[in-house]
Amino acid sequence: MIATNAGRAPVVFDDVVMAARRLAGVVHRTPVMTSRDLDRRAGCRVFLKCENFQRAGAFKIRGAFNAMSQLSEDEKRCGVITYSSGNHAQAIALAGSLLGVPALVVMPADAPSIKAEATKAYGAEVVFYNPQTEEREAVAEKLGAGKGMTLIPPFDHPQVIAGQGTAALEMMEQVGDLDLMLAPCGGGGLLSGSAIALKGRLPEAQIIGVEPEGADNGNRAYRSGKIERIEQPRTFADGLRPKALGEHTFQIIRRCVDGMVTVSEDEIRATLDFLWNRMKLVVEPSAAVGLAPLFHGKLGATGSRVAVIISGGNADIDAVARWFRAEKA
Amino acid sequence: MIATNAGRAPVVFDDVVMAARRLAGVVHRTPVMTSRDLDRRAGCRVFLKCENFQRAGAFKIRGAFNAMSQLSEDEKRCGVITYSSGNHAQAIALAGSLLGVPALVVMPADAPSIKAEATKAYGAEVVFYNPQTEEREAVAEKLGAGKGMTLIPPFDHPQVIAGQGTAALEMMEQVGDLDLMLAPCGGGGLLSGSAIALKGRLPEAQIIGVEPEGADNGNRAYRSGKIERIEQPRTFADGLRPKALGEHTFQIIRRCVDGMVTVSEDEIRATLDFLWNRMKLVVEPSAAVGLAPLFHGKLGATGSRVAVIISGGNADIDAVARWFRAEKA
Repeated sequence: MIATNAGRAPVVFDDVVMAARRLAGVVHRTPVMTSRDLDRRAGCRVFLKCENFQRAGAFKIRGAFNAMSQLSEDEKRCGVITYSSGNHAQAIALAGSLLGVPALVVMPADAPSIKAEATKAYGAEVVFYNPQTEEREAVAEKLGAGKGMTLIPPFDHPQVIAGQGTAALEMMEQVGDLDLMLAPCGGGGLLSGSAIALKGRLPEAQIIGVEPEGADNGNRAYRSGKIERIEQPRTFADGLRPKALGEHTFQIIRRCVDGMVTVSEDEIRATLDFLWNRMKLVVEPSAAVGLAPLFHGKLGATGSRVAVIISGGNADIDAVARWFRAEKA
Repeated sequence: MIATNAGRAPVVFDDVVMAARRLAGVVHRTPVMTSRDLDRRAGCRVFLKCENFQRAGAFKIRGAFNAMSQLSEDEKRCGVITYSSGNHAQAIALAGSLLGVPALVVMPADAPSIKAEATKAYGAEVVFYNPQTEEREAVAEKLGAGKGMTLIPPFDHPQVIAGQGTAALEMMEQVGDLDLMLAPCGGGGLLSGSAIALKGRLPEAQIIGVEPEGADNGNRAYRSGKIERIEQPRTFADGLRPKALGEHTFQIIRRCVDGMVTVSEDEIRATLDFLWNRMKLVVEPSAAVGLAPLFHGKLGATGSRVAVIISGGNADIDAVARWFRAEKA
């Protein structure tokens, strides 16, 4: 009988531990912030893992660097390709510049120019596609294959997932025991990585994924037991608009995550307002999503110790200011 | 011969040390943030003491609580009065609520309602005056005298100054040796307190005060050797608009501060942009003023270890977003 690893889960706790070693000295050990006002409001002790202070402004560098650092010398020479108009694009660009690996990022032609500029500033090449007529995965595969490039997708990749899990791992070192962890869910990379890290170290602790109501494909998939797709996700939280979970992230979330909840746009906005105006943190709308159920007392977490991953800080200040104005109007 | 303390300076290092003891467990030990990008840009190692994360959003609670906690029981019962439409108002209100001391705050009738609301939310009473026809000091004295209240002005008070100096003291515990410290200068409370703290612990280190060009009364006073007044300070940095230094702050600045510089509105704005968009810190415009000369390479601090007091985070996000837009236009 031949031994295979076919039965092995795509990502296990040890992968997260190994990722943390690769990332040591490369990514920031981001601070954990607390607030008496927040604790009073939530009725529990809340710890915010502030990945808005991470390099390139979000947790994404953890997964990107972890995956890219394991490429062979040949693969590194040929470079990597990805598709993203958001934080993963900048993360791949930064990881590429740190590792000396050429990076090509496929972006929709209507992406905000500031995002393309930021990605180029980290040294990546940006190629635009027409989101009306082309699928980004297909564009990336076609472009990359011709050049022998390795595709590193934004979430559905074991080493990306393992890397994202290091934020939760680090957080447990910083704050000790936890009863509950909350993470926002877009494509599920952060949530699935965090779940593996949490269950590996604190098997009794629970983890809940949070989505905007208008982008609740993960909640639906969690309930139906199969990947669900939303063609037009509707939310101001631009980082949480992937149309569906990936194969890997779905399997991990189904197996390791204890629940999925949704929050309304008003709940996201009020939470974002608190994070900016009271806690003085520049965070992007997606980053408020993980905190929102707690902030609105929707979880019955009274008296417990709760960790929330604040995923990133790449916010368009002008857009956020307009959004706050709409709230007051 | 009778011993007197007539020759004693109004504030000495020991006053700051004592203030720090009174404030222990009451105020936050705010974090010190750093940035490789910032260091590269400034050509030196920069440490930002983030008082935007302080209770009530600014360093002001340090001075307010230090002064109020030393009142006699009788004085506490009669309450305190102050004049401020800014961070000192909220600080007095919060310190009052922590110490059980009634607080009355005199504000101009045209102060943003959000500031009056925030002050009331901490439990203070707010009385408005007409800034066209009345002087705030006179209004406060008249109102307070009738009720036996103690006046605690926003900066020109020895125990307020000693309290403000505790941010610098704390910072030296956090980062160790320093060559230079920068602090913004409005009425001079933060600058003079910081100077006493710095010189008491690191006599060789230098401290420089920074003002906006349109509110440079401190620079003028430093050069002329007498208090200088500007009737209409012009700057977006609303926390730095006092018309003149106080008697105490002027004397301390003249004696202990090594230099005063100014920065333009464009320099403040570019620094604020970096703090928000790159460092993900919600800081108020005044808080960017201390960093601005370093950020623009105006100090020749190459290779040194430089501390900057980030004074507060009570920014109007809408106004800041508009100000950033003006920069790009």
